[in-house]
Amino acid sequence: MGNIFGHLFRISTFGESHGGGVGVVIDGCPPQLEISAEEIQVELDRRRPGQSKITTPRKEADTCEILSGVFEGKTLGTPISILVRNKDTRPQDYDEMSEKYRPSHADATYDAKYGIRNWQGGGRSSARETIGRVAAGAIAKKILRQVANVEVIAYVKRIKDLEGVVDPNTVTLEQVESNIVRCPDAECGDRMIELIEQIGRQGDSIGGVVECVARNVPKGLGEPVFDKLEADIAKGVMSLPASKGFEIGSGFGGTLLTGIEHNDEFYIDQSGEIRTLTNRSGGIQGGFPTEKISFCELHLSRQQQLEKSRKL
Amino acid sequence: MGNIFGHLFRISTFGESHGGGVGVVIDGCPPQLEISAEEIQVELDRRRPGQSKITTPRKEADTCEILSGVFEGKTLGTPISILVRNKDTRPQDYDEMSEKYRPSHADATYDAKYGIRNWQGGGRSSARETIGRVAAGAIAKKILRQVANVEVIAYVKRIKDLEGVVDPNTVTLEQVESNIVRCPDAECGDRMIELIEQIGRQGDSIGGVVECVARNVPKGLGEPVFDKLEADIAKGVMSLPASKGFEIGSGFGGTLLTGIEHNDEFYIDQSGEIRTLTNRSGGIQGGFPTEKISFCELHLSRQQQLEKSRKL
Amino acid sequence: MGNIFGHLFRISTFGESHGGGVGVVIDGCPPQLEISAEEIQVELDRRRPGQSKITTPRKEADTCEILSGVFEGKTLGTPISILVRNKDTRPQDYDEMSEKYRPSHADATYDAKYGIRNWQGGGRSSARETIGRVAAGAIAKKILRQVANVEVIAYVKRIKDLEGVVDPNTVTLEQVESNIVRCPDAECGDRMIELIEQIGRQGDSIGGVVECVARNVPKGLGEPVFDKLEADIAKGVMSLPASKGFEIGSGFGGTLLTGIEHNDEFYIDQSGEIRTLTNRSGGIQGGFPTEKISFCELHLSRQQQLEKSRKL
Amino acid sequence: MGNIFGHLFRISTFGESHGGGVGVVIDGCPPQLEISAEEIQVELDRRRPGQSKITTPRKEADTCEILSGVFEGKTLGTPISILVRNKDTRPQDYDEMSEKYRPSHADATYDAKYGIRNWQGGGRSSARETIGRVAAGAIAKKILRQVANVEVIAYVKRIKDLEGVVDPNTVTLEQVESNIVRCPDAECGDRMIELIEQIGRQGDSIGGVVECVARNVPKGLGEPVFDKLEADIAKGVMSLPASKGFEIGSGFGGTLLTGIEHNDEFYIDQSGEIRTLTNRSGGIQGGFPTEKISFCELHLSRQQQLEKSRKL
Repeated sequence: MGNIFGHLFRISTFGESHGGGVGVVIDGCPPQLEISAEEIQVELDRRRPGQSKITTPRKEADTCEILSGVFEGKTLGTPISILVRNKDTRPQDYDEMSEKYRPSHADATYDAKYGIRNWQGGGRSSARETIGRVAAGAIAKKILRQVANVEVIAYVKRIKDLEGVVDPNTVTLEQVESNIVRCPDAECGDRMIELIEQIGRQGDSIGGVVECVARNVPKGLGEPVFDKLEADIAKGVMSLPASKGFEIGSGFGGTLLTGIEHNDEFYIDQSGEIRTLTNRSGGIQGGFPTEKISFCELHLSRQQQLEKSRKL
Repeated sequence: MGNIFGHLFRISTFGESHGGGVGVVIDGCPPQLEISAEEIQVELDRRRPGQSKITTPRKEADTCEILSGVFEGKTLGTPISILVRNKDTRPQDYDEMSEKYRPSHADATYDAKYGIRNWQGGGRSSARETIGRVAAGAIAKKILRQVANVEVIAYVKRIKDLEGVVDPNTVTLEQVESNIVRCPDAECGDRMIELIEQIGRQGDSIGGVVECVARNVPKGLGEPVFDKLEADIAKGVMSLPASKGFEIGSGFGGTLLTGIEHNDEFYIDQSGEIRTLTNRSGGIQGGFPTEKISFCELHLSRQQQLEKSRKL
Repeated sequence: MGNIFGHLFRISTFGESHGGGVGVVIDGCPPQLEISAEEIQVELDRRRPGQSKITTPRKEADTCEILSGVFEGKTLGTPISILVRNKDTRPQDYDEMSEKYRPSHADATYDAKYGIRNWQGGGRSSARETIGRVAAGAIAKKILRQVANVEVIAYVKRIKDLEGVVDPNTVTLEQVESNIVRCPDAECGDRMIELIEQIGRQGDSIGGVVECVARNVPKGLGEPVFDKLEADIAKGVMSLPASKGFEIGSGFGGTLLTGIEHNDEFYIDQSGEIRTLTNRSGGIQGGFPTEKISFCELHLSRQQQLEKSRKL
Repeated sequence: MGNIFGHLFRISTFGESHGGGVGVVIDGCPPQLEISAEEIQVELDRRRPGQSKITTPRKEADTCEILSGVFEGKTLGTPISILVRNKDTRPQDYDEMSEKYRPSHADATYDAKYGIRNWQGGGRSSARETIGRVAAGAIAKKILRQVANVEVIAYVKRIKDLEGVVDPNTVTLEQVESNIVRCPDAECGDRMIELIEQIGRQGDSIGGVVECVARNVPKGLGEPVFDKLEADIAKGVMSLPASKGFEIGSGFGGTLLTGIEHNDEFYIDQSGEIRTLTNRSGGIQGGFPTEKISFCELHLSRQQQLEKSRKL
């Protein structure tokens, strides 16, 4: 249980950090979408560890294979199964873990729930679990872009107390990709990298805040009450390993404003569309996006993995 | 779609602010639980508007009726249907709403999605929607208490910039219920009430932050990956009207600490249980609660309803 | 668990034979559909017991009330809650049932599963449970008719060994409604009524076979593999109380033919549509309906309730 | 959509007849179950085509690989992903199918639904789709056997008009496996094989009826109303390719009996358990199995694949 997400585009992810591999089965992808393993690989390469000096040293190509659901370069409407083999497993590095629990990790709670655990690594709680999400997300992003020109961009907003200056209305993927910490404020990004390296040399680690903006989200997406768009996004974000907070629009800061100050006033633009002057609600009202200008910000607090010496 | 929540204890809520009534059908409640309409009414009375000078003036008894699933005071294991009739509907108060959209409300987005809207009030996006949640929650809380002695307490932590001093380890329901703003820090609560009244006299409104603690949460509750306990709680909280943020444990503040500073160190207590010295992870590691001492904090930013004069 | 059915049009039914009432909450009904309690009542009146000498003597008006989801005669897209109060409960008739199990009833198995049972009647296993289905079905049928001109007609095909001669291609609702046993073969219907009365006078009961035809089912309805249209229909039919069999198209009889004999050959009609000359597959191939001419036959074996004297 | 089945033990199957492979991801398998690829292979070998002269000539080893969820021979409680590579694809054999629809196949309906189709074979509607079911079923059967000593045996009861004499109370797996048509009545099995070969020589095919018995099914399994055990089994059976009918217990034949004749009378056995003298209800009453003696019979009508020359 718990490894399936979504309703119409439903993903089932699988795989531990060690063992045959990790991946995803997507049920509900529309037919006739052009998709290739190469496109998915682009996103997997972005998440791949070992790309730079500031991440975990684990080195794997993480090459994906599409096992089903695609024929002559197009989706069939049938389940798309994507597999990434595990390679650099080095179980010997984790020998100590068969006996000890690492603090702030899932070792103890997995043992409590299941009475068994793949102690060769993080097992199912490893960040490798997100490979299935990234592969499915690559396809989801392509659908959203083709159907409604939706653009989704996420970037590092803050590392510890170093916060970049980023305008979510204009930020581009190129700016995000311009440095290895993926902060569009390049100057701040340099200082972030320096800080991460410095803390790393002390055998310690730091986290930060990721911000995400989605443009051209169709009005009326999502469902009322429990499946409001902001609720589903929150669930997705908070289910990521080490995520401890979520905000949309003005977030917690919005509580410092009064209702009148906080309102997003409506106006009618030259094409007759109802739009809002500001976006304190994060582009979502009553659980549904407002038309066209919608963007949402979501922040997540990510505590990096600790070195092994900090085990119980 | 979107009006059903949960897996094993699954609730279907229904009802608009105006019309026959609001309520819930619970599918999956265990059999042989003693439950009465009176117990559910206690929780409904706590959420009922018109209780004090600081809330919306709508006055309704909001009396609940159990229509099914209970026999001779005990649950049958069959669906429990609970109905609260709408009474004080005053549709004439909302006449203007048939033509105008209120900012920061769901009027415009509901129209965009459905092309129809009960303009006599907030319709399905009204805070009355939460009556079904509260009724189901009353039963869920009783199950949790009986099965595992779980105790859940929520309270107002902050109103605008007035923040109460509350220790989540010791706070009691009696302290929460001691004033009409439900802040356990009574002295701060007095100032909160004063501020709400003052802002209200100006035709404006303010919001704040709610904190919640759950004690004795069984180890291993929740499911891995997408249905982590913190993800499901985040979804529930973010699906509440006007909620714009969620934190658990150290939340966003945790990103200012290093990994070593942030760790919750394990120790073994006198009864041989593994526990943590601190609770920066919010009592949840790898998506599952840690044993016994677990508590989670969740904050929500709630923008109060605006007066009618602020319509488009 | 088990009281929710469907995906996009999802129904949650509730209610026991005795207690406040029975009903349904529909989540996912499209907005802007004209619907009235009167239309739903027409279908409820068709299922209502006490209509004639051949059914259970229980007499209730079974009047429905729409509690939510409809505004000014049109659906809002929000959950539609429909309630039918229980009236003629006569619990004293069932006193003996608090101590004894009726054979071929759910008394023993409900006790085994839940350890509790509303012994005043059939409880949740009562045929009154189908009131929620019928109410939701009335709305579903209207949607199907409006969206795709789908017509669904069910009728009694056989009672014991008396089988009516009915052409599913031409049978009309008027023919079905022409007699109280609802067999479109009026002459056979007379003999069925006579047989039911005769067996009833002996303190015994009989069942039969219901056949259903759906016309103009859109090509491609349903989903592949597990949610094939025939599989979902089978589940719905077999979940009805006392149903013990299901066939579609040629059914079990089809196994007496060879593959060549059984084939539905394709041809292209004057409008260029691909159609089939015969309908041995029940109008469903690969789980999806074939175009336009589709009809399905489903048979169900229904064992009538026994008199009380046959208890353990 | 449509490729996921089950609630607590939820399977997602994937794969077309041609392409990378077919398989399944199981979410919800209990932890600490001993399982090996060899055990799963035993069941896959039983379904494998090309085993004998009476089935399709396709020859593949259909060797399975467990990709995740098992560690040191035991399940982890995490998703179990099982992959079988496609080997003997021979797409050239199907060239004609890129232009023509085969009657009684899913070619036309898949094209109608998706507008695209893997014409190299049956695609997703191929009987190879059942490989994922069989692999998951092997694990499900092992759980049921370990937890409650449940035994499930299925066999060919009838081919065309040749019906074996089989006592479901005593039939054994050894008897089923004693011949290549898997009819426990060995003498009848010989005649069945002869008939299949004879019809096959004429370029035609025949189908039949499969019967299944489950012993020691725990009382109270399944859920009420829509998820009655017999309804879920019916859905599973009717979702198999070419299945056109389902019966449980007395099935359609039961309608020829009166209520009194059809009753399964209760008695109390020497150990104090309530049991039934007969099993006309198929061991299921009110949707739940009766204690211990439960067995269900399910018949399915299977129309064998036609030779290619019968295309449109």
